Amino acid sequence: MSKKDIINRLRRVEGQVRGLQKMIEEERTCSDILTQLSAVSGALQKIGELTMKEYTKGCIMEYEQNHNEDLLNDLIETISKFKKI
Amino acid sequence: MSKKDIINRLRRVEGQVRGLQKMIEEERTCSDILTQLSAVSGALQKIGELTMKEYTKGCIMEYEQNHNEDLLNDLIETISKFKKI
Amino acid sequence: MSKKDIINRLRRVEGQVRGLQKMIEEERTCSDILTQLSAVSGALQKIGELTMKEYTKGCIMEYEQNHNEDLLNDLIETISKFKKI
Amino acid sequence: MSKKDIINRLRRVEGQVRGLQKMIEEERTCSDILTQLSAVSGALQKIGELTMKEYTKGCIMEYEQNHNEDLLNDLIETISKFKKI
Repeated sequence: MSKKDIINRLRRVEGQVRGLQKMIEEERTCSDILTQLSAVSGALQKIGELTMKEYTKGCIMEYEQNHNEDLLNDLIETISKFKKI
Repeated sequence: MSKKDIINRLRRVEGQVRGLQKMIEEERTCSDILTQLSAVSGALQKIGELTMKEYTKGCIMEYEQNHNEDLLNDLIETISKFKKI
Repeated sequence: MSKKDIINRLRRVEGQVRGLQKMIEEERTCSDILTQLSAVSGALQKIGELTMKEYTKGCIMEYEQNHNEDLLNDLIETISKFKKI
Repeated sequence: MSKKDIINRLRRVEGQVRGLQKMIEEERTCSDILTQLSAVSGALQKIGELTMKEYTKGCIMEYEQNHNEDLLNDLIETISKFKKI
């Protein structure tokens, strides 16, 4: 995972969230606000996917070194956590 | 929907997203990052719920005035859009 | 909502779930099983959407008759329940 | 993953889906139907989680044998597929 890529994605999300505040101030329609909320949610999903990808690779590499069963359990647990994003 | 309440919620989300950027900079674990992403996602869900609530009430009130079938279809469509947040 | 349409959809889902049992018996790959689970989940989502559509129309029609605020609150609550399907 | 456990869970889901057909026949409320749909969806989620757990362990074990990078990519892809259940 390129730190720079993720940080840029998060900056865009931050901008979208500020945009949402402006939309509320301007009393934009609920439909427009829900559309924007979906966009922010989708962007966070993508960041979660990239993070999960990195995490999974890390777990497997580490498991290879030390065969610590806990790593597998952590990975399983994290996959379930990821599902809820 | 209190504009002020929603804007405050969005400000908190904005802070959480900045916090995520800091976590990436500090190379916090993927697990910590996914936990924070879940928190942000949950906060957006809540904002979506409040928006949806307001929208639904508005649709019903307006429908009562003009019995425009389009309002019902818009509401149905928006409920599906809301599901995807 | 055509009762017949929904029941046919549910029959198809029932068949898909039996298919999943067969896949487990035959020790098909987890990847194949997850693909089939996604298909079943998608079919249930669609049934939920059709049910929600019907429900929403019913609420609005009834509200028009008696202006019972509870109907609005039930609708809001049901929209949130629908989101979790 | 105990095949027997998963098959029993799928049999229960099959029963729930038949129950839903009966609910439609009996013209139960949309709210009751959505509640039942949520229950079925939750049961499928759990089956997906158990399948994913098994799959992940399998991938890691196999990766250890042959260090085939494709296994990692398949796992990442399957995690994303799992998210959509």
